[in-house]
Amino acid sequence: VSVDKGVDFANYFCTYGFLYHQKKMLCDRVRMDAYFNAIFDNKEHFHGKTVLDVGTGSGILAIWSAQAGAKKVYAVEATKMSEHARELVKANNLQDVVEVIEVDVIISEWMGYFLLRESMFDSVICARDRWLKPTGVMYPSHARMWVAPIRSGLGDKNMSDYESTMNDWHGFLDETKTYYGVDMSVLTKPFCEEQRKYYLQTSLWNNLHPHQIIGTPATIKEIDCLTVSINEILNVTANFSSWITVEKTRLCGFAGWFDVHFRGSRENPARHEIELTTAPSIDNGTHWGQQVFLLHPLRVSEGDNMIVSFSMNRSKENHRLMEVELGCEMKQSSGKMVGPITKKFYIE
Amino acid sequence: VSVDKGVDFANYFCTYGFLYHQKKMLCDRVRMDAYFNAIFDNKEHFHGKTVLDVGTGSGILAIWSAQAGAKKVYAVEATKMSEHARELVKANNLQDVVEVIEVDVIISEWMGYFLLRESMFDSVICARDRWLKPTGVMYPSHARMWVAPIRSGLGDKNMSDYESTMNDWHGFLDETKTYYGVDMSVLTKPFCEEQRKYYLQTSLWNNLHPHQIIGTPATIKEIDCLTVSINEILNVTANFSSWITVEKTRLCGFAGWFDVHFRGSRENPARHEIELTTAPSIDNGTHWGQQVFLLHPLRVSEGDNMIVSFSMNRSKENHRLMEVELGCEMKQSSGKMVGPITKKFYIE
Ligand SMILES: Nc1ncnc2c1ncn2[C@@H]1O[C@H](CSCC[C@H](N)C(=O)O)[C@@H](O)[C@H]1O
Ligand SMILES: Nc1ncnc2c1ncn2[C@@H]1O[C@H](CSCC[C@H](N)C(=O)O)[C@@H](O)[C@H]1O
Repeated sequence: VSVDKGVDFANYFCTYGFLYHQKKMLCDRVRMDAYFNAIFDNKEHFHGKTVLDVGTGSGILAIWSAQAGAKKVYAVEATKMSEHARELVKANNLQDVVEVIEVDVIISEWMGYFLLRESMFDSVICARDRWLKPTGVMYPSHARMWVAPIRSGLGDKNMSDYESTMNDWHGFLDETKTYYGVDMSVLTKPFCEEQRKYYLQTSLWNNLHPHQIIGTPATIKEIDCLTVSINEILNVTANFSSWITVEKTRLCGFAGWFDVHFRGSRENPARHEIELTTAPSIDNGTHWGQQVFLLHPLRVSEGDNMIVSFSMNRSKENHRLMEVELGCEMKQSSGKMVGPITKKFYIE
Repeated sequence: VSVDKGVDFANYFCTYGFLYHQKKMLCDRVRMDAYFNAIFDNKEHFHGKTVLDVGTGSGILAIWSAQAGAKKVYAVEATKMSEHARELVKANNLQDVVEVIEVDVIISEWMGYFLLRESMFDSVICARDRWLKPTGVMYPSHARMWVAPIRSGLGDKNMSDYESTMNDWHGFLDETKTYYGVDMSVLTKPFCEEQRKYYLQTSLWNNLHPHQIIGTPATIKEIDCLTVSINEILNVTANFSSWITVEKTRLCGFAGWFDVHFRGSRENPARHEIELTTAPSIDNGTHWGQQVFLLHPLRVSEGDNMIVSFSMNRSKENHRLMEVELGCEMKQSSGKMVGPITKKFYIE
């Protein structure tokens, strides 16, 4: 359901750029009277207030809001009708109250864990489509997501935490039975599932050491912040292969991280390109760290080829959290295949 | 996949309201250096420019943008951190350049044919979530969608236009064969389908006369503009029944229209509630008219009961256009059932 921004603009907004079309709406007496009365019969909603007019067109609603006593009216319009609106505001001597806004730069630090957690980028895209001039630039301008095979001791720790939690549960069952006379063993299965999910299926935050990366990293998503649509970031799917680059080791799972770049735009490139990367690093770790997806460990050797499928979606319960499906097959340098294994993860 | 606005705010935004959390980000040296250098190494992107900082938090990016020479910086923040940002801006003597924006009223005329065509309401929702104060009001504040059974002569006209288009096609085939030696008859089926869709499956714009409404209208959707989420307007589904109120007539299809109300908010109600309705009317027609969905005509009598299922979705090809599935069954006053019939329509 992806919509190209340029095509959408051409199809949808082009008619609104004509005064002829605005006039048609301005001549709809029922429409005009309703808004006119809504504003002037309820001046107390406007008097001394700050008003936002979304899609101001000719500027009519912004002008009425100002005439009803607004302290400040921000008027936004996606087509070049904004110029006419500005003239009309001035001709009615309301330029101190009504501001027709367009911006040259949108700057935002919208990145969550593994780039997209929090889904805050949606708000930035939405602001871009409404406020940014056609010649505008985005800070940052580009973003990428990376995945690489890793070794890590986190898995052992997690498994032993899980096991001790379950041991503890069995003690709890006995005591509840003995002291309170209630048998809670029917809850063992759901508790076990809940705790498995928590300890074994939730991705982990970690600032890895670069030596923990044991194979070639792959870019699984590239985003141009100037043109990407929300539909294009709802799902991230990639199939890639990664070569093991370490002699003999244990593959414990995969790590995901991101980088963003400040490059300006094609017409208006940055003089100095800046990169912000959250890749594993000795000295330059960030608060984002990396997200670690643990698998059942696997012996691997240099030259083994990992064939990976990765798919991330927003969680149905909370659009700001993510669910990941990871599939992985190994082609050993001898030609022998191992796997495939697949596992589901939650980025909480 | 519907997300309650209040719950989302509580879950997501609450942490950002603490200075403790902002400080964590302000102490991420890699992050800070990247944005700092991106701005100050590219001053020409900021000098004399208008900048929007989406999610300003403590205000740091807005302040840097201003220090790099921006003419004006609009900073927006969803949590009460906006107050700290405002103080910080003032303490750095940048209050003439950086404006931390919150609005009291959002006014917009976002309604398309049958309310939701154009999907412009998405932009308004997005602006609301970012700019509107917790105590703010929406103009309009409420919207409803209506459907009712109608009689209409448009169907006959459409059918005869369709038939003459197809007759014309057969003449065209003969001539192309005779004069240019090419047999185009393989295109008959796709042309026929294309034209059927155009003449018989596209809903029609019409300002109906109230007498053309032959049964009780039903509300199929109610929207509170202050709280609705985009997910809640992606699909409109309703099952309803309508009683025929006219003695003996021909049911030709259904009409859809909308109304909106200006009622302010619960805490801040309008002194005079205003209604804008696009229902069939003798004197007060609007440029929106009604959308007419034509079916194969059916004889009906007063007291017959129409059992209708209605479902509208955005078109996959263009999110601003809609597709409707209409199902209809009749229970005559005698008890006899007629139908069901179902038909798909495009709102183009
Ligand atoms: N996302 C968006 N950002 C800015 N303007 C938008 C927009 N979506 C639609 N518009 C603009 O909103 C206007 C809607 S028509 C209403 C015009 C004016 N407010 C009036 O009442 O007369 C159009 O001019 C259209 O170009
Ligand atoms: N839709 C939205 N509207 C306004 N603010 C939002 C938002 N989504 C997220 N935010 C805010 O955006 C901030 C992101 S954290 C970045 C803060 C600051 N710009 C800095 O770089 O230090 C948070 O303070 C959060 O509350």
